[in-house]
Amino acid sequence: MTTAARRSDPPELLAAARAGDRAAVARLLSLLERGGEPARVVGRLTHSLGGAATTVGLTGAPGAGKSTLTSAVIAEVRRHDQPVAVLAVDPSSPFTGGAILGDRVRMGDHVLDPGVFIRSMATRGHLGGLSLATPEAVRLLDAVGIPWVLIETVGVGQVEVEIAGEADTTVVVVNPGWGDAVQANKAGLMEIADLFVINKADRDGAEQTRRDLEQMLELSAPTGWRPPILMTVGTTGEGVGDLWGAVRAHRDWLGESGELERRRAARITAELHRILAARLLEQARRLGRGEGFERLRDDVVARRLDPWAAVDALLGSSPA
Amino acid sequence: MTTAARRSDPPELLAAARAGDRAAVARLLSLLERGGEPARVVGRLTHSLGGAATTVGLTGAPGAGKSTLTSAVIAEVRRHDQPVAVLAVDPSSPFTGGAILGDRVRMGDHVLDPGVFIRSMATRGHLGGLSLATPEAVRLLDAVGIPWVLIETVGVGQVEVEIAGEADTTVVVVNPGWGDAVQANKAGLMEIADLFVINKADRDGAEQTRRDLEQMLELSAPTGWRPPILMTVGTTGEGVGDLWGAVRAHRDWLGESGELERRRAARITAELHRILAARLLEQARRLGRGEGFERLRDDVVARRLDPWAAVDALLGSSPA
Repeated sequence: MTTAARRSDPPELLAAARAGDRAAVARLLSLLERGGEPARVVGRLTHSLGGAATTVGLTGAPGAGKSTLTSAVIAEVRRHDQPVAVLAVDPSSPFTGGAILGDRVRMGDHVLDPGVFIRSMATRGHLGGLSLATPEAVRLLDAVGIPWVLIETVGVGQVEVEIAGEADTTVVVVNPGWGDAVQANKAGLMEIADLFVINKADRDGAEQTRRDLEQMLELSAPTGWRPPILMTVGTTGEGVGDLWGAVRAHRDWLGESGELERRRAARITAELHRILAARLLEQARRLGRGEGFERLRDDVVARRLDPWAAVDALLGSSPA
Repeated sequence: MTTAARRSDPPELLAAARAGDRAAVARLLSLLERGGEPARVVGRLTHSLGGAATTVGLTGAPGAGKSTLTSAVIAEVRRHDQPVAVLAVDPSSPFTGGAILGDRVRMGDHVLDPGVFIRSMATRGHLGGLSLATPEAVRLLDAVGIPWVLIETVGVGQVEVEIAGEADTTVVVVNPGWGDAVQANKAGLMEIADLFVINKADRDGAEQTRRDLEQMLELSAPTGWRPPILMTVGTTGEGVGDLWGAVRAHRDWLGESGELERRRAARITAELHRILAARLLEQARRLGRGEGFERLRDDVVARRLDPWAAVDALLGSSPA
């Protein structure tokens, strides 16, 4: 660890991170996770520096083998001699630990490779949590020159699907078994999938699952891109080269079709809406207590003021 | 219907309503349901006029016989020669109809009595809906001189419990049967109950249900008031005199103990918080679209501006 990494000054940390200091990257990510003004400073420094990185979301039900597959994908990216980062996101867990910690251990193959950066993202209980911190983390990793950012989400809840679905390319991982395809559809995964991966494809039922998925894709509205279905065995790396080829093909299509621009604008729109909601919620909490609030409430209780006029007075007294 | 009632000018309508014109009361309640500026005008007119009415919330699972019981309570209040209003609130139904309409028919006994005012409240799809409109409706009924306002909620969802729980006196209606007491506890009804009514008390299991409730009350933290448990048969009116006596006793206790003031202040606090949240959510929706938003979003997409600065600009450009 260098001197810069021990400091907490964001510009210095960022300079060190851009020079290859991984501890500085980790420090900056911690600032982003914690939120508040230090996170804002990091955001202001990084937003203009990137634009070259591609984000790949990996999502699917727990137990689908996403971490093993992610580890195999890392190996494949490294074979192409490119740096890669993984953000492992678990909105259901307020702190790093449990499944995520286990995942980090399983990805331990790459721990000594300076071209690989793996990080579990945890909410620190602040407003908006991971949905707000994840795009900022991506901009940081982009700003320090990492061309591929994999975003692995642990579950298939609304937030997980939202986070994975906001990547440039979203990979939905299922397993052989008749129920998977149906489950994928239910969870809204069909709508966000750019690629399907049937992982653990050496098990019984892989072909049937492929047919189920094909059938569901037939029913969905045609767009310029038809999600390919890949077969992998994460533990052996089988099929992972093809998977990565499909990710790169999708990335090329995004650029050529103009879809990349459209997606990034939609993503920024969603991010701005989330920040706006968080800011106004914060404002509501701040305005809804304290002496100024209590004075106005007493006026309403005493019928000197009607409730809407009281709220007008609250909002007027404090610019947004 | 008088001339005044056909007009839509709130001050004229209110004057007519205070002179006893029930159609004018109905028109004013419709304005409150619809929300927006006309509702604000009504609110500004009524907030200073009341203060004498007592609100009684009646809640419990669907099928507990609340409407029949309410009808019997109305008859009891009328025996004391006092005017009474009923607001039947069903947050799950966007428009008047279904169960609520059925309830109105069952309360038809009182339809020709000028001392009884019965109204189903429906959301008109506007923000905050019934939680915002109900206290305004109560203030209106108070302002036109009705001393008792019964608020009957149809279900035991969060909004129903919230609305019923914000009355001066909250009556929780259960039926004989082992599950009711447990259900009451689960739904958070134990916390809001000032009185328990075991309705349909002529059925098997009424005594057991009373013992279950007593046991649960033993476990709850002692306050200055221990909720009595009443037994009624709504269809015959049996026990309803005692129930109304208990409501009046609770009302007396509220006044003597200072609890009435505390509750009304807490209720106003909750109402102000809801209005504040609705106003800010409205603001978020307005700010999150349109040309100004799109221009800032494009600046963020082009990395000329970071997302938080863009939201600062949005909030700064539009006073709350």
